[in-house]
Amino acid sequence: MAKELTSREENYSQWYNDLVIKADLAENSAVRGCMVIKPYGYAIWEKMRDELDRMFKETGHVNAYFPLFIPKSFLSKEADHVEGFAKECAVVTHYRLKNNPEGTGVVVDPEAKLEEELIVRPTSETIIWSTYKNWIQSYRDLPILCNQWANVVRWEMRTRLFLRTAEFLWQEGHTAHATEQEAIEEAQRMLEVYADFAENYMAVPVIKGVKSANERFAGALDTYCIEALMQDGKALQAGTSHFLGQNFAKAFDVKFANKEGKEELVWATSWGVSTRLMGALIMSHSDDNGLVLPPKLAPFQVVIVPIYKTEEQLTMINEKANSIIKSLKSLGIRVKYDNNDTKKPGWKFAEYELKGVPVRLAIGARDLENGTIEVARRDTLSKETVSIEGIDQYILHLLEDIQKNIFQIALERRRKFTRKVDSWEEFKTEIEKGGLLLCHWDGTPETEEKIKEETKATIRCIPLDAEEESGICVYSGKPSTRRVVFARAY
Amino acid sequence: MAKELTSREENYSQWYNDLVIKADLAENSAVRGCMVIKPYGYAIWEKMRDELDRMFKETGHVNAYFPLFIPKSFLSKEADHVEGFAKECAVVTHYRLKNNPEGTGVVVDPEAKLEEELIVRPTSETIIWSTYKNWIQSYRDLPILCNQWANVVRWEMRTRLFLRTAEFLWQEGHTAHATEQEAIEEAQRMLEVYADFAENYMAVPVIKGVKSANERFAGALDTYCIEALMQDGKALQAGTSHFLGQNFAKAFDVKFANKEGKEELVWATSWGVSTRLMGALIMSHSDDNGLVLPPKLAPFQVVIVPIYKTEEQLTMINEKANSIIKSLKSLGIRVKYDNNDTKKPGWKFAEYELKGVPVRLAIGARDLENGTIEVARRDTLSKETVSIEGIDQYILHLLEDIQKNIFQIALERRRKFTRKVDSWEEFKTEIEKGGLLLCHWDGTPETEEKIKEETKATIRCIPLDAEEESGICVYSGKPSTRRVVFARAY
Repeated sequence: MAKELTSREENYSQWYNDLVIKADLAENSAVRGCMVIKPYGYAIWEKMRDELDRMFKETGHVNAYFPLFIPKSFLSKEADHVEGFAKECAVVTHYRLKNNPEGTGVVVDPEAKLEEELIVRPTSETIIWSTYKNWIQSYRDLPILCNQWANVVRWEMRTRLFLRTAEFLWQEGHTAHATEQEAIEEAQRMLEVYADFAENYMAVPVIKGVKSANERFAGALDTYCIEALMQDGKALQAGTSHFLGQNFAKAFDVKFANKEGKEELVWATSWGVSTRLMGALIMSHSDDNGLVLPPKLAPFQVVIVPIYKTEEQLTMINEKANSIIKSLKSLGIRVKYDNNDTKKPGWKFAEYELKGVPVRLAIGARDLENGTIEVARRDTLSKETVSIEGIDQYILHLLEDIQKNIFQIALERRRKFTRKVDSWEEFKTEIEKGGLLLCHWDGTPETEEKIKEETKATIRCIPLDAEEESGICVYSGKPSTRRVVFARAY
Repeated sequence: MAKELTSREENYSQWYNDLVIKADLAENSAVRGCMVIKPYGYAIWEKMRDELDRMFKETGHVNAYFPLFIPKSFLSKEADHVEGFAKECAVVTHYRLKNNPEGTGVVVDPEAKLEEELIVRPTSETIIWSTYKNWIQSYRDLPILCNQWANVVRWEMRTRLFLRTAEFLWQEGHTAHATEQEAIEEAQRMLEVYADFAENYMAVPVIKGVKSANERFAGALDTYCIEALMQDGKALQAGTSHFLGQNFAKAFDVKFANKEGKEELVWATSWGVSTRLMGALIMSHSDDNGLVLPPKLAPFQVVIVPIYKTEEQLTMINEKANSIIKSLKSLGIRVKYDNNDTKKPGWKFAEYELKGVPVRLAIGARDLENGTIEVARRDTLSKETVSIEGIDQYILHLLEDIQKNIFQIALERRRKFTRKVDSWEEFKTEIEKGGLLLCHWDGTPETEEKIKEETKATIRCIPLDAEEESGICVYSGKPSTRRVVFARAY
């Protein structure tokens, strides 16, 4: 194979980087920490975005767009929020360059200094709630259910393609409600949407839970999350949904007149997923040969490669392929025909394996005679020869099967990687093996902090379906009523 | 009507501002020059984006995403480009805030100064061509046909919602080619796509032309454009497509080995349309009652309003309405049913007129008895009562008719507003009346500059279909071979 990957066993981290680069998903740019999302990677992100956007709209949300810049003073209005976000951000201080009076090129024009610095949004609660203030007077104006697809910037010191970049793409939902109950329900509803998307589109099983205070969003009363497990045993937070209480309404003085005409502060949620999902997708399913994409998100679900020696054979294969393409497309299947004659079939096979195309069809002169076609599935790397008759329905079911199969494999991996741990000695041994540890915890930030210091493990979440169970904290020995999920995480 | 607009006759500019605000399209934000695009405005932009995106893909383009930030030194690499864009831009100089040691809030951390300032992209030629350098080695890597949907920032001093804002949303196509001819063809192809979109989706007639040197994009050899005429007689540049020659390949040293193995510089194009199209759409069709939207871009094409006195009547109307909605949706028609009982029908009629919904259906108890429904069209403000039987096909054809009609009205307006002018005295009189003046011009930037100084009129374009015709320049009296389009412009 032309573009060999480091194997996962040899160096998982290097495997991931190799794969992102060699499968043409993304690359580092000339700007520190910022990535270029290449067309193939962007096509996958587009599929994700389109499905999520449809799900948001089906749950009553509308899209809008708010400014890229946030006045510096806005960030300070919510105390926890500024602590969480002011530390790593891109600051615009000037609005003009001028020709360098001392030489070539351009320099910042010192006369074009902004009175108040602008922050490139790391998240948009502050600018949005300053806007909502003007949109909300009465209970009749509520709820507001807005989402925004946007770029955001957080000045991360250590970056990795998709997983942690200075600029990333995301969506951020920001909703305003008349009651606490309604806001909590909204935050939980969007967590369900994220879980549905992760499991049924990305084929990534997730645990739905709530964050401990240490891991909560800066400014939230509760952060709900979905947590996924990667092949190397590390956890990855794939999406968060925050119940913000009245914190931002207080900070920006957003009140409404209720049905009795009394003024009340508005209740808020925010929720987001980002291009980080690309990292989760890649690390959940791919193997040493390359990407493995779930059919529902694959830019091409099927690729057809002709195998021929003569032009005459190619002409006949083209004809047959075109009729197959037509019937596949009529079923809504995304198919690519690669009859580029400057590449050999073997090269193409490797290339589409690397790119994770779920199904590869190969058709040769012998197949034409026999009315057969070779079907290779990417997930199992298995091949079989089947009849061309009825191939469209065959492929349709095969794609459904692949979608289910890669989810089941990920689910089974998680099952094996998840275990209950009841002593500190065991915890220290087990955490080295990776995976999710279900442990009792005394509920204090101090204990969580100490566990993190000693083992680099954090509480990924308190699962929403955690059973009541008496136990003692794995670290402090104090009493606990339910198990939480510990893991090392991306 | 609750939300009255300033009339166009009274104050066209105020009418536009009123309309953008009152129809809930956009509003100014807390950040100077940056707008908030509200859900209804964004829904129209989404429709535009989706249609354009489909057209780009059908012409072989793929989407990608490049960084928001551009290193300052990149801007200087192409001499004309830096002249055109460095003067008005947002400059990031620091990457951290810290708690204010002398009080409350946060301040820029002076220790977190960037070694090289970053510019928030005003356009992305430089960052993209610095990337293409790594993507292109041989003729086999060409063409590259990338598009990006993104936000950009130009620090405009005088801003107006949609028409000129510091931050705006747009798409920018950036293509790389092996030959000059291919690049020119690409620039022209995308001009055709823009013209197709403007005329057949926005229902805005446009003149396809090429810019004079003065109005050319900074860094281009040729700028093709589509120019539209607004109701007040001012022109508006609705889209541009640039043939960039080898300027950016030179600036970033992007070469390819041709089939003979010889190194050559790569040829480039770029092309873009932005949220400015929203301004063109609004100003082309709307009237003193509010927006008039072309059916193809309207978030809702049809609204149904029930007219009732009793709950019993409403129940019966709901049932009938639901069956109409079902049959309209099955034809792909976007329909909204407004049976909100806190608003009166008259209020709703005014509201949907303001929002530009192409067709309004009203159905009352009498209609149920008679098997009829009232159909009102937004473009002509006419009403008629028709049979419910076959209403779905009736509406389908009506929407097509409205789409054509508003295009025809705009076309007829442009015809009336366009005239040939052959003397300088006449030019000075006529330009005050607005519209497009077809004049001979001696081809020099100096003459164009003087005409602009004296009349504020610029050359909008040299029409691609301009006929060869001997004449003398309207200003200098020097010889000319074809007429160009002069106008005052947005």
